Amino acid sequence: MTLNMADWNRLRSARLFASLGEDEFRAIVGTPRIEQLAENRTLFLQGTPAAAFFVVLEGWIVLTRRQADGERAVVRLVGPGESFAEALIVQGARYPVSAEAATPVRLMRIDCAAVRTLVAENPRIALAVVAACHLQMHELIEQIEHIKTWSARRRLACFILNAVGTREGAAQITLPVDRGLIAARLGMTPSTLSRTLAALEPLGVVVDGRQIAIADVSALASFVDRIS
Amino acid sequence: MTLNMADWNRLRSARLFASLGEDEFRAIVGTPRIEQLAENRTLFLQGTPAAAFFVVLEGWIVLTRRQADGERAVVRLVGPGESFAEALIVQGARYPVSAEAATPVRLMRIDCAAVRTLVAENPRIALAVVAACHLQMHELIEQIEHIKTWSARRRLACFILNAVGTREGAAQITLPVDRGLIAARLGMTPSTLSRTLAALEPLGVVVDGRQIAIADVSALASFVDRIS
Repeated sequence: MTLNMADWNRLRSARLFASLGEDEFRAIVGTPRIEQLAENRTLFLQGTPAAAFFVVLEGWIVLTRRQADGERAVVRLVGPGESFAEALIVQGARYPVSAEAATPVRLMRIDCAAVRTLVAENPRIALAVVAACHLQMHELIEQIEHIKTWSARRRLACFILNAVGTREGAAQITLPVDRGLIAARLGMTPSTLSRTLAALEPLGVVVDGRQIAIADVSALASFVDRIS
Repeated sequence: MTLNMADWNRLRSARLFASLGEDEFRAIVGTPRIEQLAENRTLFLQGTPAAAFFVVLEGWIVLTRRQADGERAVVRLVGPGESFAEALIVQGARYPVSAEAATPVRLMRIDCAAVRTLVAENPRIALAVVAACHLQMHELIEQIEHIKTWSARRRLACFILNAVGTREGAAQITLPVDRGLIAARLGMTPSTLSRTLAALEPLGVVVDGRQIAIADVSALASFVDRIS
């Protein structure tokens, strides 16, 4: 399977490659190995040796932690242009989460051992991996902050705002994955998610199935930023 | 100020140095710069340029995120032998959290720019930083999992179990920092913490101020692991 121009652009803008020159980027990507997964298919299981990390080209991956009682905690939803599991180039690392296709997915597989070899030859690549870890950690820290101190309404408004990708005007988005997963990602039950979506109506957010219309994105942004 | 033998042992076992040889360890530590902080003193503020990272030798540091409404979310409590902020060797990084002394603290400061230079010369050091980031991320992912899916009782039992450091026998510990901080770290209110401490009594956990006596650590461990 080959990469089209949109794939290259998505890859090039992934946080892992942001600080790299063209030669270093090409060295890591090598001959691209693209994989496709049907919805609900497992990419890797928590606890297994980490052989590769990934960049999503199309669709959504859900990262979960398995519980002793069979429940799953959703740690992250990974969308187009996002990389995950870069820190696993460490020798002997195991996947700390399981990864599953939340929608049909196309992604690029990057071999951990190959990148380990490149790091040994080129410290700029090592710093790029550290930078990617730094951003990933920042995101995890933000998530912990939000679960601990933000209301369900504010967490959901923030999620919608990130999905919209702009800070003003009117907007219409389609929720990328099903509501159950979004609820789990935000640390709430599906019924709380439904109630909370309804509670965002005074802010101009109107929901119809997976379609969400936002009358004024800046009003939503002010709410998230606690200006309003 | 000089390092005693216990300091060296704590430093050497910090996760950042675990995968390094003696020469590389000495190269990073260089001429050790030790700092002392009185309780409640600020080490660095969220959002300021990251000039250094740290290893705690004695006492406890609390890492917090500042909220728009003045509230603070406790992200992590860092104790003896633990390093933090290693990912910040990335050029231009800013501290994603504030750090404050939760008790009187002695710590070692490591200059980010100096480690960046070492990384450029020695890829093993780069991989050590990636490995430290990997462990730190693992810890953050676990914390997210626990807040989202574990009961307050199980989160507190797990915290006590980690503080004890063994998995069997009887044990007695002193809570390292005040209850308000522990409550915030565990994502609960101080009054929930008190109620939850009381609810651990059937598991043989008896509390007297900051003193906690555990009759049978293995029973507590079974509860945390959901075996009992």
